[in-house]
Amino acid sequence: MQLSHAMSLLSAARSEADHLGVSVSISIVDAAAWPMAFIRMDGCPLGAIEVSHKKARTAVLFQMDSADFAKIAHPDGGAYSLENTNGGLTSFGGGVVLKGTDGSVMGAIGVSGASTEDDIAIARAAAAQPAA
Amino acid sequence: MQLSHAMSLLSAARSEADHLGVSVSISIVDAAAWPMAFIRMDGCPLGAIEVSHKKARTAVLFQMDSADFAKIAHPDGGAYSLENTNGGLTSFGGGVVLKGTDGSVMGAIGVSGASTEDDIAIARAAAAQPAA
Amino acid sequence: MQLSHAMSLLSAARSEADHLGVSVSISIVDAAAWPMAFIRMDGCPLGAIEVSHKKARTAVLFQMDSADFAKIAHPDGGAYSLENTNGGLTSFGGGVVLKGTDGSVMGAIGVSGASTEDDIAIARAAAAQPAA
Amino acid sequence: MQLSHAMSLLSAARSEADHLGVSVSISIVDAAAWPMAFIRMDGCPLGAIEVSHKKARTAVLFQMDSADFAKIAHPDGGAYSLENTNGGLTSFGGGVVLKGTDGSVMGAIGVSGASTEDDIAIARAAAAQPAA
Repeated sequence: MQLSHAMSLLSAARSEADHLGVSVSISIVDAAAWPMAFIRMDGCPLGAIEVSHKKARTAVLFQMDSADFAKIAHPDGGAYSLENTNGGLTSFGGGVVLKGTDGSVMGAIGVSGASTEDDIAIARAAAAQPAA
Repeated sequence: MQLSHAMSLLSAARSEADHLGVSVSISIVDAAAWPMAFIRMDGCPLGAIEVSHKKARTAVLFQMDSADFAKIAHPDGGAYSLENTNGGLTSFGGGVVLKGTDGSVMGAIGVSGASTEDDIAIARAAAAQPAA
Repeated sequence: MQLSHAMSLLSAARSEADHLGVSVSISIVDAAAWPMAFIRMDGCPLGAIEVSHKKARTAVLFQMDSADFAKIAHPDGGAYSLENTNGGLTSFGGGVVLKGTDGSVMGAIGVSGASTEDDIAIARAAAAQPAA
Repeated sequence: MQLSHAMSLLSAARSEADHLGVSVSISIVDAAAWPMAFIRMDGCPLGAIEVSHKKARTAVLFQMDSADFAKIAHPDGGAYSLENTNGGLTSFGGGVVLKGTDGSVMGAIGVSGASTEDDIAIARAAAAQPAA
């Protein structure tokens, strides 16, 4: 994934957040979980900065959306404590895997700062963008 | 928030703790979660020092009292694992948001060392002080 | 500082990097050292990601460019070991304080990935942008 | 050392800082290096918060002022790298040991935010206070 694509993802996520009337932090990581681009919208709670990054990190490290990761990495799930590995992962929605047209994982987007439902909607709206 | 106001909050919290006959640690942070003032009362358990800071930090980073944060960052809440972000947050009461007369977040107070009920009562008694 | 201003700083820094023919990571933090915006240009070494953030953090926490910080936090400087506080600071150039028209500190920009000279030139070119 | 004494040390340090026209962070730790009281004066750079604590911690852990510690924990000193133990120590002045009337170590005070000379002067002025 190139920076130009990451920037278009940020832009799409920001538009969806504006449309929903919420203020969020948005993190894009590459397929190796390294940060590519980040923005914090005006008014977003400070605690959401790291959460947006950890959601993206969780999604790409296990190649599944953080909402799906939450089902297994939970006291009632099959891999309880998995959320405590890799520097701390995020067991709730808002981290979404980004795939290329061939289905390969290109990276992930993480959104935090609004309700979990809105965070997920924003991340999905961006991820639905066609790859450049 | 200025130091003079933080000092009056410490004083109010300490009076309430004396009134309840308990010994606590009290931390005040600003709106960006940076420490402003701190005291540990004689006899307070050492473990409460960091807890008082993390309660204040939790409250201000998510702009909600740590007792409310506890409801969402819990294995049965909607944001399980959120307590593991931002260096570790505190999912029980005793961290209270401080607001200005216009409703804006000025910082937070965190109290630890007594029962959670008393910690909350002390933090609220201080937070009820009028802003300088 | 608002996101719109942080984005214009990123854009100015990126243009200068393109002009110099180098690829860098660029971090913008607010006056309390919280991340506002970040990009990593295509081809930038991965190690530069955190360095760009630490340069910006160093500049804002001590309200001096990281090139000046380097003079004091050095074995021969007056504050040797200062670079080991606050989670690790950066004792070389590329972190530049951002000031408003009234001279107050608004935040900082950190650039890493090219030579220190180029990193500094890129950060300064962006910081010279008029505040929105 | 009791909180009442720590508070009188904070007050004496703050008066000296006002007298010198500087704004600093002031940390008091007990003989076991645990925080007792802390204030950040209005306008103090944020980076000084942790430094004030590390100066006090350094002084009490090695029972010597941090200005003396700097002579040994330095690339040219006899214990180079000692500054990297105990979570990171501070090899420059501003941390001063607090002794009781019998000469025993009661704790330490750390001051940061002004010039190293002023930081030292403020810490010494407070430490010269008679123990309660």
